[in-house]
Amino acid sequence: MKLYDYGAAPSPRRVRIFLAEKGLEIERIEVDLRTGQHLKPEFRALNPRGVVPVLQLDDGTCIDESIAICRYFEELQPEPPLMGTDAKSKAMVDSWVRHADFDGFLAVADAFRNSTPAFAKAGLPGADEPVPAIEALVDRGHASITRYFNRLNQRLAESSYLAGDSYTAADISALCVVDFAKWVKRTVPDTHTDLLRWYAEVSARPSASA
Amino acid sequence: MKLYDYGAAPSPRRVRIFLAEKGLEIERIEVDLRTGQHLKPEFRALNPRGVVPVLQLDDGTCIDESIAICRYFEELQPEPPLMGTDAKSKAMVDSWVRHADFDGFLAVADAFRNSTPAFAKAGLPGADEPVPAIEALVDRGHASITRYFNRLNQRLAESSYLAGDSYTAADISALCVVDFAKWVKRTVPDTHTDLLRWYAEVSARPSASA
Repeated sequence: MKLYDYGAAPSPRRVRIFLAEKGLEIERIEVDLRTGQHLKPEFRALNPRGVVPVLQLDDGTCIDESIAICRYFEELQPEPPLMGTDAKSKAMVDSWVRHADFDGFLAVADAFRNSTPAFAKAGLPGADEPVPAIEALVDRGHASITRYFNRLNQRLAESSYLAGDSYTAADISALCVVDFAKWVKRTVPDTHTDLLRWYAEVSARPSASA
Repeated sequence: MKLYDYGAAPSPRRVRIFLAEKGLEIERIEVDLRTGQHLKPEFRALNPRGVVPVLQLDDGTCIDESIAICRYFEELQPEPPLMGTDAKSKAMVDSWVRHADFDGFLAVADAFRNSTPAFAKAGLPGADEPVPAIEALVDRGHASITRYFNRLNQRLAESSYLAGDSYTAADISALCVVDFAKWVKRTVPDTHTDLLRWYAEVSARPSASA
């Protein structure tokens, strides 16, 4: 199997960290987003949505969406568990992964894409037609980042990790968002001591450099 | 356990259909979004993000995010399986659920919220401060709906259901999006015969009225 990847992008990083935590190594193929390789017919044949990462299985099946790829590896190799171990913990992981995506990742993406000249016609990733940037989304995105950081700090005041007592894909997802936020010059405020404690800890894991 | 629900909203419907397919009935508490009950301190104590649905377990734990609630019930009662049965099918379900959310649900929500006077200061759901509507998101949302319908039709030309040969949470998610799109006067075009075949079939299941 092969992972279509791009080293600098935040979504594939989630998969790379997940694989590192599982101790798995798989073949990677770099898709150069800067030169638009992801929008070419060859790549769209693998993923019509034109985004990375994509995992191509040996039977040719392509799995897109970073967290769906993580799910595949969680099932393939359950240890160490990163997506919960029972009904409640699995649901909590799913929930906090989605907070990272809807409240965090989309917020940073809005603030970034709509303020960056290179994305003036690429307000959404992967579209096969121009999607004009919308300037008003920059402020909306920044306000959402503030709310997301606040919620992470509140949660981490009462819980060691986002989904409970152990490190999971929810923490991997949020770590990728917090680092992605640096792209729009947002860092965790000094007042957010619980978020900073967690951030230092998850960033110190060897997987974080994946 | 209790499900905090709102009959007219598309996200909780996903949970209701899922429960109907499982043959499960649980206590429901209606949260009146029209009068802003979801933004009151009593509800925020259950879900700080101020959105429905929320599943409160008997130990007090609150699970938010509709698909995380579905995961909980999938684990509690695996039959009939609605989220895949092996690594590949589970990943495919996750992937197509996320397409429904990112490409479909968000697109309709953008087109709807930013064009509806009642949401002039509620561009995002659940925020605890005003989020001004952004008019340009209406066109962007409609263009995304078009792309999403196209992709659904392409996929359903080659597959009986979205994630493969059987009905899953991916179909439930997409059904909720297609019906939600009617809120902005979008229906599946006559040209999209495969999508229409699927839509007729999944809409005819008794669960669709949940």
